[in-house]
Amino acid sequence: MNIDSELFGNFAFHAGLLAVKTLCMTGLTIRMRFKKKNPISREDAALRKAEKIGIGQDDDVERIRRAHQNDIENVFPFLTLGFVYLFTNPSIITAKLLFRIFSAARLIHTVVYVNEGSVPTRMAAFFTGIGINMYLGGSILNHFIKAW
Amino acid sequence: MNIDSELFGNFAFHAGLLAVKTLCMTGLTIRMRFKKKNPISREDAALRKAEKIGIGQDDDVERIRRAHQNDIENVFPFLTLGFVYLFTNPSIITAKLLFRIFSAARLIHTVVYVNEGSVPTRMAAFFTGIGINMYLGGSILNHFIKAW
Amino acid sequence: MNIDSELFGNFAFHAGLLAVKTLCMTGLTIRMRFKKKNPISREDAALRKAEKIGIGQDDDVERIRRAHQNDIENVFPFLTLGFVYLFTNPSIITAKLLFRIFSAARLIHTVVYVNEGSVPTRMAAFFTGIGINMYLGGSILNHFIKAW
Repeated sequence: MNIDSELFGNFAFHAGLLAVKTLCMTGLTIRMRFKKKNPISREDAALRKAEKIGIGQDDDVERIRRAHQNDIENVFPFLTLGFVYLFTNPSIITAKLLFRIFSAARLIHTVVYVNEGSVPTRMAAFFTGIGINMYLGGSILNHFIKAW
Repeated sequence: MNIDSELFGNFAFHAGLLAVKTLCMTGLTIRMRFKKKNPISREDAALRKAEKIGIGQDDDVERIRRAHQNDIENVFPFLTLGFVYLFTNPSIITAKLLFRIFSAARLIHTVVYVNEGSVPTRMAAFFTGIGINMYLGGSILNHFIKAW
Repeated sequence: MNIDSELFGNFAFHAGLLAVKTLCMTGLTIRMRFKKKNPISREDAALRKAEKIGIGQDDDVERIRRAHQNDIENVFPFLTLGFVYLFTNPSIITAKLLFRIFSAARLIHTVVYVNEGSVPTRMAAFFTGIGINMYLGGSILNHFIKAW
């Protein structure tokens, strides 16, 4: 059950990068809530000279929240799948490639989504992420099936 | 701090299974969004011949999203609780039983919820999942209390 | 790649505590949904003598859901960041301090948010959590940058 320390380091880097990237969505949301005067709770209204309160009030705020939710749905499973995948004796070259492409795909997804960019590009980035997660999951299931 | 490799394998299998299962909710949502012509963002509207755009517009789409959110709230904590629980010197038989029942309960929960099935069955599956997560959490707190 | 068992125990305790704390939000939501007769799905309506069905119908229910979502966005990344941080050879004193403050900040955040308490206190608790997560993430990126 030992794992290569270079491989672990690669996973650790991408896990850190993706978690920090996801946390940054909160900052984008807060900034847009101030800009559009759309606080999330009524007790924040005084502070921000609110014009509208709550969720679903402003599409520019909601767009960032949708990108954030997409990270929650895709990055968070990766944080576990990527880690457990390390124990399936993967090729280091393959694993590093998968982790790098996943990080790149998720960064591209966010940039395109938040800026209302090209839909096919966003779809490609999204399905790249899903595909890698599914590959990691399939490898894990295949490797550990006997221990079910 | 060593853990049994058979036990780790069992956790790895169920973690992989549950993460893949949760990722599949995205596929169900996309399919239903196409079927009900309810894309999530306005830039997707042309692609999908949209009739309504955004969140909260179509109950069949929202039903799948609620099932997905329920996974996020219950499966994601399990991915950490199950892993840390491995380090509490659990009985292998108990641990494997808990992981298997958790997986089964979450699969049943989704099938029943998405198909608008029996409420008591869905509740039983839901509380089985919550109960196991709480047991894992309680075991962890109890085992590591001195290291707080 | 060895980690100190006392340090791991400290992380394990706080990971367990925070995961259980986040799971408890579900219980608060269910209780409030009963009290305000606001079930989430139409098939639950008979059971709960519903007056309104779904999401966004009752601000007291939504308040708890917002606090829960805030945990999902902040506690879940911590469960991975805290674990990977253990492998960056941190000072045990620093690490334990960070984990303890993070747990305290997230508990304070929830209590203040759910009870519609002081906004500056909630903000301070929120940014303490974000700050610690960012510090953990930055330490990980710095430590593992060569393995990118």
